[in-house]
Amino acid sequence: MTEFDTSLPGIRQVQNYIKNKQEVELKLVTDDLLVGKLIWQDANSLCLIDHYSQETIIWRQALVFLKPKA
Amino acid sequence: MTEFDTSLPGIRQVQNYIKNKQEVELKLVTDDLLVGKLIWQDANSLCLIDHYSQETIIWRQALVFLKPKA
Amino acid sequence: MTEFDTSLPGIRQVQNYIKNKQEVELKLVTDDLLVGKLIWQDANSLCLIDHYSQETIIWRQALVFLKPKA
Amino acid sequence: MTEFDTSLPGIRQVQNYIKNKQEVELKLVTDDLLVGKLIWQDANSLCLIDHYSQETIIWRQALVFLKPKA
Amino acid sequence: MTEFDTSLPGIRQVQNYIKNKQEVELKLVTDDLLVGKLIWQDANSLCLIDHYSQETIIWRQALVFLKPKA
Amino acid sequence: MTEFDTSLPGIRQVQNYIKNKQEVELKLVTDDLLVGKLIWQDANSLCLIDHYSQETIIWRQALVFLKPKA
Repeated sequence: MTEFDTSLPGIRQVQNYIKNKQEVELKLVTDDLLVGKLIWQDANSLCLIDHYSQETIIWRQALVFLKPKA
Repeated sequence: MTEFDTSLPGIRQVQNYIKNKQEVELKLVTDDLLVGKLIWQDANSLCLIDHYSQETIIWRQALVFLKPKA
Repeated sequence: MTEFDTSLPGIRQVQNYIKNKQEVELKLVTDDLLVGKLIWQDANSLCLIDHYSQETIIWRQALVFLKPKA
Repeated sequence: MTEFDTSLPGIRQVQNYIKNKQEVELKLVTDDLLVGKLIWQDANSLCLIDHYSQETIIWRQALVFLKPKA
Repeated sequence: MTEFDTSLPGIRQVQNYIKNKQEVELKLVTDDLLVGKLIWQDANSLCLIDHYSQETIIWRQALVFLKPKA
Repeated sequence: MTEFDTSLPGIRQVQNYIKNKQEVELKLVTDDLLVGKLIWQDANSLCLIDHYSQETIIWRQALVFLKPKA
């Protein structure tokens, strides 16, 4: 579905958010807005950890947008 | 649609939930939230078993997110 | 979009429902829940027959989940 | 997105509806239900003609289900 | 996502609407109905110009149906 | 999912909006309408910067339409 080419700006920006433990907001196709820190990404999915240290796997096909938490 | 590479973190995490009979919550594009234990995954679909031992096949294109039941 | 590999568990489970004339519930992306018996599947679509012997072709991209009718 | 293999049962069934000028109901991802006769299909789209002889091109990615009009 | 084969009937029909400056209605997955004239199409997108000469790029994955304005 | 061929009209038009710092409206599958300036695009995503200099990564699969802000 997507190319997982780690030199792409979008993939690198997500990688920076992971490295910097940046809190982010992630909008999904269901209109859910998840808040937390990304801990890894792979070709199919991302993993977000919330304030309660709970891990959520999010599939890439469900992604709409991502921004640093204001 | 997705690569079914069992070395990917997302695929392995799902495999761990299957092995550990972890109860999970699975959010779908229809906004349905299914609760139960995953019993297998393949390239196209996952199978969830609920409290009444009923098996539901879920297609990957419908997946939004997955987390362990709190 | 999907691999139509008849050795995959998900494809085989659907094939079993067809063979056993199992009544099923099929949830679609539009939130429709169709009830009936599956009579065939191919790489792109499935065919469901309802109580009035009417045949409905359902495209795979619209599939969310499938379970035996309780 | 889909294989346009004219030997597949789903593609052949649509071809039969075209040949027989069968009136059909076509459900789309927007929940629209279009009624009319199919006049052609190709790898990406289908064409429906309604009672006013108006032609509508429908993209395959928007298809949910199809059945003969009752 | 789609084959951009200019010999396909659907692609040719869109090309005719462009050539003839036919006013069209374009239904999108968000349920928006855009009205205007198509000015070009490529493998990923179409461009529509409205009554105020404003150009809108529409991505193919968002297309549902297209018909000539009645 | 899409071809990222920089000679395609749609990709070039987006590139022009980036170069000209054109303010745009971007409609997404969730029905969100984002307003701002595009700062880059790659094969999978686009990046929009808003009035508060906040960067939002938008995945291509979520794009519906784009137009210059009126």
